[in-house]
Amino acid sequence: MAKLRAVLIGATGLAGQQFIAALKDHPFIELTGLAASPRSAGKTYADALRASNGMLAWFVPEPLPEAIARMTVVSGDAVQAKDYDIAFSAVEADVARDLEPRLARDIPVFSAASAFRYDADVPLLIPPVNAAHTPLINEQRRQRGWKGFIVPIPNCTTTGLAVTLAPLAERFGVKAVLMTSLQAMSGAGRSPGVIGLDILDNVVPYIPKEEHKVEVETKKILGALNPAGAALTPHDVRVSCTCTRVAVLEGHTESVFVSLGKKASVAEVTQTLREWQGAQVAKDLPSAPPRWIEVLDDPFRPQPRMDRDTHGGMATTVGRIREDGVLENGFKYVLVSHNTKMGAAKGAILVAELLRAQGLLG
Amino acid sequence: MAKLRAVLIGATGLAGQQFIAALKDHPFIELTGLAASPRSAGKTYADALRASNGMLAWFVPEPLPEAIARMTVVSGDAVQAKDYDIAFSAVEADVARDLEPRLARDIPVFSAASAFRYDADVPLLIPPVNAAHTPLINEQRRQRGWKGFIVPIPNCTTTGLAVTLAPLAERFGVKAVLMTSLQAMSGAGRSPGVIGLDILDNVVPYIPKEEHKVEVETKKILGALNPAGAALTPHDVRVSCTCTRVAVLEGHTESVFVSLGKKASVAEVTQTLREWQGAQVAKDLPSAPPRWIEVLDDPFRPQPRMDRDTHGGMATTVGRIREDGVLENGFKYVLVSHNTKMGAAKGAILVAELLRAQGLLG
Amino acid sequence: MAKLRAVLIGATGLAGQQFIAALKDHPFIELTGLAASPRSAGKTYADALRASNGMLAWFVPEPLPEAIARMTVVSGDAVQAKDYDIAFSAVEADVARDLEPRLARDIPVFSAASAFRYDADVPLLIPPVNAAHTPLINEQRRQRGWKGFIVPIPNCTTTGLAVTLAPLAERFGVKAVLMTSLQAMSGAGRSPGVIGLDILDNVVPYIPKEEHKVEVETKKILGALNPAGAALTPHDVRVSCTCTRVAVLEGHTESVFVSLGKKASVAEVTQTLREWQGAQVAKDLPSAPPRWIEVLDDPFRPQPRMDRDTHGGMATTVGRIREDGVLENGFKYVLVSHNTKMGAAKGAILVAELLRAQGLLG
Amino acid sequence: MAKLRAVLIGATGLAGQQFIAALKDHPFIELTGLAASPRSAGKTYADALRASNGMLAWFVPEPLPEAIARMTVVSGDAVQAKDYDIAFSAVEADVARDLEPRLARDIPVFSAASAFRYDADVPLLIPPVNAAHTPLINEQRRQRGWKGFIVPIPNCTTTGLAVTLAPLAERFGVKAVLMTSLQAMSGAGRSPGVIGLDILDNVVPYIPKEEHKVEVETKKILGALNPAGAALTPHDVRVSCTCTRVAVLEGHTESVFVSLGKKASVAEVTQTLREWQGAQVAKDLPSAPPRWIEVLDDPFRPQPRMDRDTHGGMATTVGRIREDGVLENGFKYVLVSHNTKMGAAKGAILVAELLRAQGLLG
Repeated sequence: MAKLRAVLIGATGLAGQQFIAALKDHPFIELTGLAASPRSAGKTYADALRASNGMLAWFVPEPLPEAIARMTVVSGDAVQAKDYDIAFSAVEADVARDLEPRLARDIPVFSAASAFRYDADVPLLIPPVNAAHTPLINEQRRQRGWKGFIVPIPNCTTTGLAVTLAPLAERFGVKAVLMTSLQAMSGAGRSPGVIGLDILDNVVPYIPKEEHKVEVETKKILGALNPAGAALTPHDVRVSCTCTRVAVLEGHTESVFVSLGKKASVAEVTQTLREWQGAQVAKDLPSAPPRWIEVLDDPFRPQPRMDRDTHGGMATTVGRIREDGVLENGFKYVLVSHNTKMGAAKGAILVAELLRAQGLLG
Repeated sequence: MAKLRAVLIGATGLAGQQFIAALKDHPFIELTGLAASPRSAGKTYADALRASNGMLAWFVPEPLPEAIARMTVVSGDAVQAKDYDIAFSAVEADVARDLEPRLARDIPVFSAASAFRYDADVPLLIPPVNAAHTPLINEQRRQRGWKGFIVPIPNCTTTGLAVTLAPLAERFGVKAVLMTSLQAMSGAGRSPGVIGLDILDNVVPYIPKEEHKVEVETKKILGALNPAGAALTPHDVRVSCTCTRVAVLEGHTESVFVSLGKKASVAEVTQTLREWQGAQVAKDLPSAPPRWIEVLDDPFRPQPRMDRDTHGGMATTVGRIREDGVLENGFKYVLVSHNTKMGAAKGAILVAELLRAQGLLG
Repeated sequence: MAKLRAVLIGATGLAGQQFIAALKDHPFIELTGLAASPRSAGKTYADALRASNGMLAWFVPEPLPEAIARMTVVSGDAVQAKDYDIAFSAVEADVARDLEPRLARDIPVFSAASAFRYDADVPLLIPPVNAAHTPLINEQRRQRGWKGFIVPIPNCTTTGLAVTLAPLAERFGVKAVLMTSLQAMSGAGRSPGVIGLDILDNVVPYIPKEEHKVEVETKKILGALNPAGAALTPHDVRVSCTCTRVAVLEGHTESVFVSLGKKASVAEVTQTLREWQGAQVAKDLPSAPPRWIEVLDDPFRPQPRMDRDTHGGMATTVGRIREDGVLENGFKYVLVSHNTKMGAAKGAILVAELLRAQGLLG
Repeated sequence: MAKLRAVLIGATGLAGQQFIAALKDHPFIELTGLAASPRSAGKTYADALRASNGMLAWFVPEPLPEAIARMTVVSGDAVQAKDYDIAFSAVEADVARDLEPRLARDIPVFSAASAFRYDADVPLLIPPVNAAHTPLINEQRRQRGWKGFIVPIPNCTTTGLAVTLAPLAERFGVKAVLMTSLQAMSGAGRSPGVIGLDILDNVVPYIPKEEHKVEVETKKILGALNPAGAALTPHDVRVSCTCTRVAVLEGHTESVFVSLGKKASVAEVTQTLREWQGAQVAKDLPSAPPRWIEVLDDPFRPQPRMDRDTHGGMATTVGRIREDGVLENGFKYVLVSHNTKMGAAKGAILVAELLRAQGLLG
C-alpha cells in the first residue's frame, strides 16, 4: 500500500526536527515535503539548517536522515495541499493561524501549535485518553466547510498530567489538581530557547502562558463529547499550576496533588495507574508503547534523565504515590513525561495514526 | 564587654564551616573552641580539613579565617562546658542525641541538628516568627534540671515556608498548605552529599525524611505557647509537601499553594508579605536583615541564583503571588530561601542573638 | 557452542555495572558469577545494590537484566577459578593486587584496574592499536608460572589518545604530544565520585595520578614487542598532559597538540585518521565498531554529549584538525572518547574477544 | 575635582551592563550618557532593558543602580562627543567600526570591541603588562588627525594568558605557548549567547575567531614599542590555541604549556609569577588589585567558581605549575581569569585609569 504523503511545515525548528526523526521508517507515513520560512526556501534541508557560522543546527539525538538532508525546502506559503495527503505543523502559533486553515481546507493537519487548541470545534487529542472525541472533527468540517481538518495536540506540560488523571477520573473521579512543573529546556526550543547563563545553577519560576494552557487544556481533554458529537463539555476538575524551568535537557517532571471524587487507598490508586489500558483503539497504534503509564516503586523515581525515554518516550512514568492529608480524598505523586516525544512530535504522529485507525484519513 | 566564648561542635562539616564563616567578626560571639570527630582531634583546623589527596576541603565562598585555620580541633567528647558560654552544634542527628544534652546541662546549645526538634519542651525558633516561644526554654530547664538548654533551628526547607506563612497566618489565618520544593545541593552536605552523576540534567524527586520534617515543624513553629509558657499547641494548618532536589548550588525554591482563613485579594496578600515586620524584638538583632521578606514584582523572580543572597541570605524572597482558583481562599506563590544562611548557620546565630536580647544568655 | 563462563569481580561498583550492561546478550561470554566485597556476599545482586535509603544504586542507562538482579553475589575471596573460564575485574587497584593474581593462576583475567598495567610482562591492549602485543602474555605465563594471565586495559583517558595517535605514528611517526583533557564525571565512579557541589558551574583542574598514567601508558601501548615476544620497548614519543574534570556525565574530550615525525598536510592527517583500519584481527570482533575513528567536518564537533555514543561508544570521534604552527610538523585536534564504554568495560570485553580470536582463551 | 563625564555606547548588552556595574562609585569617572541601538532610544534605561515578556534583562550580579535605571537612553548615532570627556564602547565589532572613530575625533574611546585591535597605530593595553605602549596613542592621533583616540582592550581569553606570560617573558623569555581554554558562557553574551540545550552535559570545542585573536593579540601585547614610540614590534613568541566552551557561568580556565627562553626550576617559575609587580604606574590605579597574579598551592586550584572573583575579579589565579617534559625549557600551568571583569569592562576602566595617571586624558 502506498504510504501517506506528508508535508511538514516548520521543518527547520527544533519541533520540526523532532517530526523528522520520529517519521523516519514510519510504516504508513512518508515525508515528501518540507516547508519553512521564505529564508530557507530553495535550499536543501541540510543547507537550511546550517547556521551563519557553518554549524549544522540539527539538535535531536537521532542522526539527520540523508534523504531528508538532500530534500529541497519550500516556503510555507508555497505548499499546495493537492500534493499531499496530510500535513504536520511545527510552526509558531502566529504562523499557524494563517497557514494551517489554508491547508485544512483540503487535507488533515496535525499540529503542535496552540493556535486552534481552544476553538470549540477542535478536539485536543491524546489517543489513549480521549479517542472518543474524534467525531468532533466532522462537526469542524461541517462548520468550516473543509475537506480536511485541524487537530492540535496539547501543550507538552498538559500531556503527562492528563494521561495520569485519565485513569483516576475514570475510576474515582477527580475534583481538583494542584501541580508544580519542573520543565526541561527543550520545551523552549532554540531561538533563542533557554539561555545557558539564565538556567545554570538556577530555576526560573515562570513560563509565560504555560499555566493557563495546562489549566484550560486539561479540562478540555478530560471533557465529554455530547451525544450528537457536536460539542465538548469540559471536565469540571479545577486545575491550578505553577510552571518552572530547570536545568534539564528533556523530560518534564510534575509534582501533582489531586483530590479524587471518592475515597481510595494508595494501593488502589497505584493499581489504577499501573493497569490502565487507555482507549482500546489506541493500544495497537504503531507508536503506542506497551503501557501508557509505568509506575515505579523506587521512591527516588521517576527522574527525568533516567525515565524520560521509557518506551521510546511515549510512556508517562509515575512514582511517589502517597496520601496527601490535606485535600479531600487527596493523593500526591510525581510524574515524568517526555516533552518532545509523547508531548510533541511523536504525540502528533500518534494522533494521525489514531485517525487513520478510525477511518478519518480518507 | 567580653564576647561570649562559643564552642562549635561538628566544625569540619559543611554546616560547621558555615558557622565559622558566619561568626567571623560577630559583635558579641567569639569562637574559642572547635570540636569534631576523634579522627580530627589534635590537628589544626586546616589540617583537619585536608582530604587524603591534600585538597583543602573548605567549601563556603568566604575565605577560611587564618586564626581559625590555626586553632587545634578537639574531639567532641572532650569538650568541657565550663570552658564556654555557649555551644553551636552542626553535628548529625545521632551524634547530637548524645553530645548536645551533655553540654546543655551547663550551657545553651544552638543546634542545626534535628535530634531534639520534636520534643515537647523544645521550641523551634525563627526569631521574627515565634520569638514568643522562648519561655518554653524555662520549662525545658525545669523539667530536665539543666542550667543550659537546647534550641534547635528548623529544617532549612521549613524556614522559608514558615517565614512566609507567618504574616498570612497573622492577618488572614492559614488553613492548608501544599508545597513542592526544588532544593539546592548544599542542603545535602558533602559526605557524600549529592553526586554530580545523579543530578546533572536531572531532578531527584525524593529527599528522605524531608517532607515529614516540613509538615511537623511548620505546625510547631506557627503554634501557640500556652499562658503558663509550659507547652506549645501546634497550629492546625494542614501541610503536605513533595520535596525534590535540583542542580542548584544554594537556595531552596518552593512553590506554595495556600488556603487562607478568609477572603483576600492578591494586593492584600502582597502587601501583607511585603510590609511584615516580624517580632519587634527580632528587628534589631545583629544578623537581622532590613526586611525578612522581599516581594519581587518581576514575574520571573525569585530565582535561586539571583535572589538567594538577598540581605546576606537572611531574607526570604517571594514572587508570582496569584489567586489559586482551587483551594478555598487559595493563593499561590514562589519563594526562595537561602538554605545554608537563614536556613542553617546564620539562622542559629540569629536565635542566639534573640535569646541574648531576651536576657536568656546569662 | 557453550559460552565462556565469566565471573565479574567488583560487580556492584559503577564499572562493574558497565560490565553487566555490556555483557548482556554477548555471543560467546556469559556472566555466571558475580563477586563483590564481603558486605554484599550472600545477597541477590539487586539487594546488594540497594542503598541504605532503599534506592536501587544501578547507574548505567541500560536496564538491569532481571536474571542478573536475581543472582547471588559472592565475596571476592570466595571465588574459585575452577568454576569459570575467564574473569573480568572492576575492582580498585589495591583489591586487584591480591585478587587478580590468585585467579590468574588458573584463568585469564581482563581488568579495568591499574594494579598490573605497568609490569614489564603485562601488555596493555587496545585491539585495533596493538593486537601484536599479545605474545607477551606467553612470557607472563612463563615467568609467573600461571595457567591464566592478567591483561589490563588502559586508563580511560589514554584510550582515545592512543587510538588517534596510532594511525599518525604508523604513517608519519609521532615525536611529542601535549594534551589537555576535559573529563566526564563518570570516570570518578560514585563512591563518592564527583560531588555536585564541586563541579556545577566549575572546572576542577586536577585528577590525581591521571596525567602520569596517560604519559606512561601511551608510550607502552604504542611501543614495540621484541622479536622474541618477551619484552616491550616503549615508544619514544614524549607525552605531557593536564587533566581536568568538567560537568559532563560521560565522554572524555581531549585537546591534542602533536608533533609528527615528518611533514604532512591537514588533508593527509585527516585522511590518515579517517581511513585507518587498525589491526586486521580486530576488525571483525563482536564489539568492534564499523570504524575505530570517525572524523567530523563540522568545526563545532566532536562534542561529548552528541558524539560519545558513536558506534555504541566504541568509536573515537575527531574534529578540528588544524596545523599547529608551533611544534615541528605540528597538528592539533580535538577528540571525544566514551570513557566507560571503549574506555572501560566494553574495552575490556573487546580484549577478551581479541584473545579468543587469537586462540589464547583455551 | 569634577569627575570625567563618560558616555557608554552599547549600554544595554551584557558587556554594557558590566561597565555600569563597574563604574558605580568610581572615584573620577561618572556615567552621564547611555547609548544603544535606535530601538532603545528615548526609553529609560530600565525600560530599554525590559524584554517583550516584561522581564528586566539585567544580568550582572550587582544591582542596577537606580540613577542609571532612570536615565534616558539615546541612539548611538546621536551621541555628541562635545557632551563628554571620554567614551566607553561595548558594541559589536561592526557597529564599533563606524561609531568609535566618529567619537575618537574628539575624545578618548576605551573599547571592548575588536574592530581596531589589530591596527598598527592602536595599542592593546593591559596596564600591568604593557603600560609602556601608551606613547603609540600619540602616533595614532598624529596619523589620524584626531584629538581623541581609540584604545581597545584584548579579547577576554588573551588577558589571563598575557598577564601570566609577561613575568615569564621578562625573566626567562618565552618562545612558544600551546594553550587550551575552557571558557565560560558569559563571554558569549546573551543574544543569544550560549543556549542551555547546547552546553548542559557538554563541551563545545570551537569558538569562532577566538583562537586567531589570542594568537595575534598575545604577540602584540608582549611586543616592544620602537624608540620613537611610533610602531610596535610583536613579540616573537609562537602561540597556538584550542578554545572550548564549558558549562561555567563566569571565569575562563586555561591550560597552558610554555617553552621558556632559558632553563628554570618550578620554584623559580612559581616565585616569578607570585612576586610579579607589573608596571609601576599600574600599581596604584583605583581598580588595581593588591597583586595581579595569585599563585595557589592547592593542586585542585584554580577553579573558576572558587577563584574568578579573587581581588574583585582583577587578579589572575595560577596553579598546577609543573615541568612539562616535552617542550624545551617547558612548563605547564593552569590559570583562571575573570572574563567579564579583568577581561572586559573593568579591564577597560583600568586602561582609562592608566591613561589618566599618565596624563593622557586631558
